[in-house]
Amino acid sequence: MKVRRSERLIDMTYYLMEHPHTLVTLTSFSKKYGAAKSSISEDLTIVKRTFSERGIGILETLPGAAGGVRFIPKMPETDALTIVEALCEQLSESNRLLPGGYVYLSDMLGTPDILRKVGLMIASKFYDKQVDAVMTVATKGVPIAQAVAYNLNVPFVIVRRDSKITEGSTVSVNYVSGSSERIEKMELSKRSLKRGARVLIVDDFMKGGGTVNGMKGLIEEFEAELAGTAVFAETRHSGPRVVEDYISLLSVDSVNTAERTISVTPGTYFDK
Amino acid sequence: MKVRRSERLIDMTYYLMEHPHTLVTLTSFSKKYGAAKSSISEDLTIVKRTFSERGIGILETLPGAAGGVRFIPKMPETDALTIVEALCEQLSESNRLLPGGYVYLSDMLGTPDILRKVGLMIASKFYDKQVDAVMTVATKGVPIAQAVAYNLNVPFVIVRRDSKITEGSTVSVNYVSGSSERIEKMELSKRSLKRGARVLIVDDFMKGGGTVNGMKGLIEEFEAELAGTAVFAETRHSGPRVVEDYISLLSVDSVNTAERTISVTPGTYFDK
Repeated sequence: MKVRRSERLIDMTYYLMEHPHTLVTLTSFSKKYGAAKSSISEDLTIVKRTFSERGIGILETLPGAAGGVRFIPKMPETDALTIVEALCEQLSESNRLLPGGYVYLSDMLGTPDILRKVGLMIASKFYDKQVDAVMTVATKGVPIAQAVAYNLNVPFVIVRRDSKITEGSTVSVNYVSGSSERIEKMELSKRSLKRGARVLIVDDFMKGGGTVNGMKGLIEEFEAELAGTAVFAETRHSGPRVVEDYISLLSVDSVNTAERTISVTPGTYFDK
Repeated sequence: MKVRRSERLIDMTYYLMEHPHTLVTLTSFSKKYGAAKSSISEDLTIVKRTFSERGIGILETLPGAAGGVRFIPKMPETDALTIVEALCEQLSESNRLLPGGYVYLSDMLGTPDILRKVGLMIASKFYDKQVDAVMTVATKGVPIAQAVAYNLNVPFVIVRRDSKITEGSTVSVNYVSGSSERIEKMELSKRSLKRGARVLIVDDFMKGGGTVNGMKGLIEEFEAELAGTAVFAETRHSGPRVVEDYISLLSVDSVNTAERTISVTPGTYFDK
């Protein structure tokens, strides 16, 4: 069946978006649409230019007989800043203030539109870091890990504080919860990470950094490698921070429970 | 800036995929691309036909001055069956067998490609059921809930068995865990559901149905409405099932720990 260019462009865009970071050969597109490779090649030139001009991402071209294209979702930093500024405003709403100076953000982490953008933003910083897996800790980190994993097209693994029979054998580490100074335990199913895998740690909120540090310990136990650390929000912490190298999208600079104000600014993501 | 048709078709496809179940007006596309409404209208006819022919989804057209289009992701049932059959095979692998006859599936629920398809399949059954929110229970249900919510473009809420300070005030219910006959407690942040909201319950695994029933109790407590129930996998349960109306993608029919075999078939999703 012969397919017209307009139809090919629509279906190709759909297919590439559903298969990020995946090599798609000219041959497979050529067969799929019953079109000559030269026509497919022209189509992809148009797709590549549009993806670039519209800030959708990079269409990498791999030449040669086994060649093809690979779509890498990537958001321009100016777009990211606009989105983060809107998120700062949303997170500063005074009705988010909880007893103890905590900030409610479960609604934001349950909104597809926000997760899509957050996932794309974080993935845009790590697209060329050869990430093999995203790691997070249950429960609140899961949505962000999934959103990032979608864009990098790698699996995500969930570290738990409580073991479940449905996880099979696990590896556990003890860590110091930075904020409370308590010793806690976290564990991960033994089959979930391969030795040498490059792991991106993702979490919703970082205070002292104890949880992130625990995950780093787990990565070591698995003889895997740390590819980076990214959090949705961090809060300015009085004590020493145990994590040095990370990116945050938002920074909760101060919480005033008396005046019921929360001050939020863009995080280290935008540091030069 | 004037934009050519080929570029418009690519960017429109991208935009519609990122904004499912959202009304996009002809006017907004017309402004975005500096093109006459008549040209945009022609573009959308091509997009609509391609989405339909390629099994991508429905492009609903809303006529009139405030009119526009709405993209509804929807997978044809024949495609769903092909995917589910492959998942059955994957879930039947004997090395998934855990002590106690449990089946390991965390890896599948951490794979973007599987989640994308599972989310689309479940959403395809509920796209016209006016779902306002997806509900699941921590931790393993979260990835599926998120995948479904992405396709329906509604928020998802996470019920927890342990309360956290970062959730604020919660509403809790007690429920009977069907398999163990124990009384357990689950709770949900008070701000996460509006009265009258239509809620789709989603979970990874259903055995006796106790957990799903607990969530139904919560929906009642919030004076919300049940829009449906969908699970990734169910297992044939010897006792009475407390949930009647649900869809499952996979059915674990039998687990033989002696011979190390797991028998998995397509679930009620495909019942006529």
